[in-house]
Amino acid sequence: MATLLLTKAQVRQLLRMTDVITAVEAAFGAFNSDQVAQPDYMGLHLQPKGAEIDFKAALDRAGQMVSLKASSGGFRDNPAQFGLPNGMGTVLLFDARNGALVCAMDGSLLTGYRTGAAGAVSARALARRDARRVGVIGTGTQARMQIRALREVLQIETVHAASRSAEGLAAFCAEMQEAFGLTVLPGSPQEVAEAADILVTTTRATGVVVQAGWVRPGTHVIAVGADQAGKQELDPELFRGARIVVDSFAQCAAKGDLQHALRDGTAEGPQTELGEILLGQQPGRSDDAQITIFDSTGMAIQDTATAAALLSRARAQGIGTLFDFLGQDG
Amino acid sequence: MATLLLTKAQVRQLLRMTDVITAVEAAFGAFNSDQVAQPDYMGLHLQPKGAEIDFKAALDRAGQMVSLKASSGGFRDNPAQFGLPNGMGTVLLFDARNGALVCAMDGSLLTGYRTGAAGAVSARALARRDARRVGVIGTGTQARMQIRALREVLQIETVHAASRSAEGLAAFCAEMQEAFGLTVLPGSPQEVAEAADILVTTTRATGVVVQAGWVRPGTHVIAVGADQAGKQELDPELFRGARIVVDSFAQCAAKGDLQHALRDGTAEGPQTELGEILLGQQPGRSDDAQITIFDSTGMAIQDTATAAALLSRARAQGIGTLFDFLGQDG
Repeated sequence: MATLLLTKAQVRQLLRMTDVITAVEAAFGAFNSDQVAQPDYMGLHLQPKGAEIDFKAALDRAGQMVSLKASSGGFRDNPAQFGLPNGMGTVLLFDARNGALVCAMDGSLLTGYRTGAAGAVSARALARRDARRVGVIGTGTQARMQIRALREVLQIETVHAASRSAEGLAAFCAEMQEAFGLTVLPGSPQEVAEAADILVTTTRATGVVVQAGWVRPGTHVIAVGADQAGKQELDPELFRGARIVVDSFAQCAAKGDLQHALRDGTAEGPQTELGEILLGQQPGRSDDAQITIFDSTGMAIQDTATAAALLSRARAQGIGTLFDFLGQDG
Repeated sequence: MATLLLTKAQVRQLLRMTDVITAVEAAFGAFNSDQVAQPDYMGLHLQPKGAEIDFKAALDRAGQMVSLKASSGGFRDNPAQFGLPNGMGTVLLFDARNGALVCAMDGSLLTGYRTGAAGAVSARALARRDARRVGVIGTGTQARMQIRALREVLQIETVHAASRSAEGLAAFCAEMQEAFGLTVLPGSPQEVAEAADILVTTTRATGVVVQAGWVRPGTHVIAVGADQAGKQELDPELFRGARIVVDSFAQCAAKGDLQHALRDGTAEGPQTELGEILLGQQPGRSDDAQITIFDSTGMAIQDTATAAALLSRARAQGIGTLFDFLGQDG
């Protein structure tokens, strides 16, 4: 019984967005098939202010795998003081049949991919068939990940992008051109929202970033930024009359953009979960004029599924280092 | 930035009960000095029935260390089906100053040692100076660990032991003789309780195992078995008039033997925590006739302190394997 160790470089080599989309889609289906257990996460606040380390676990009964992800973030002095990234991650995978630790991998890249993949899964299920123009508000890592994932499920013609940082916007434009040959048209949040068939919000905002009146009929909105109590990007009015879909109703009611719509009465709980649509238990988009909203807060089972897919690929390719924690003790 | 990996055999080699007692004693003090954060643990129930995997985390602000312990147990088919123990463990240590993963070690042996150490710390603080006779009810791993720890803090003359399993009792007697040269006198729970200066209970009972009338004045009771809602070993009457000390009042009120005493009104909350006594904030034993009770449910900070001590010792001795999860990615 040896544990497979995977470095960040190996994880990068093994991560393929198409695999992650497949894994995350299956995870949403499992979540709504009573195949998943996800206990409340554990969080520790550290110094400097804003730094933290969180632990999230999930059980996938179908795949018989348990994951534990440790994620740190907000250590803004790390690059200068320690030569380390300001956030890191570690994922442990356990065989649910016997509790054995089968894999320990760097988890720094996993969250970005699995969150991007969730957006793409929602777009495949809910966006108009002819959606070609993607708008992103916020141009950080997660905006890149959403584009990376969306291009696997639709033919992107143009990307429209808004950012409060001119520098960040320029870097994003250059990178999308270089990585994917995509032309990015910078604009204000309103211009981006008005141009988009698919509108992605990935800011750290705690107030309305997208006014309801800016969003055209037929748009699919992927709301990623709001994942804590108090965070907000969407005008609660946007929820009125829209087809609202969440990853987890319990999470979105507490931490997603939905929290504000529920408070304002522009949405009523419980809302449809994405897995229910994937399983055919609930309808998706009604017609080409309907606005659809996917409120994404991120679930631990996405980590389980993504890490399990990585492990399979690593084993198939013979990548990684075996380490026997139990040694001759068995 | 490399992570030190420690196998079970290396952990066994590095674990010294005296070090663990020192570390755990400091942990109790830190807990009552506002130096500790311990979020509610995460638990997942698995198959077969009774199998589980739990995740416990703690932050030690004094030592600037975060620990995460994954513990599995109850996989009764593991030895036959997988050639694995029925319970395993993994401990991760993170540097609280930057979130980096500094150590990943097998954690199978840690819980036994840190729980044994807590009993010894309580005995040093609360038992009579002339305590020489130790009684144990229940003769499993934890009974062995309590003896192993108590012999570091007092001169044990005889051990009295009771078990529902004649086989288990015989093995315990043989092992204590061989390992420590200690003579064990088997008896009924009543005989053991009546003979003991220090009485240790380590069963899985969910009802009274020790009647109040059996315990002589001046006895120090270490109640280890009850660590979940519904579990019980001590007659709630024993708490009446005794000096009651807990590891964590919140935990003991919910999961320790104290839960039953609070319900029956033979104890009133909040009770003194062991750290308060170690820090001199609360008195210990009043006189040689007082019965003292230490209700031990186990805290994550004991894991943090024990693992951190192990890591220091491993580094000092050059034991373990360095693995760079971040690789050239830094």
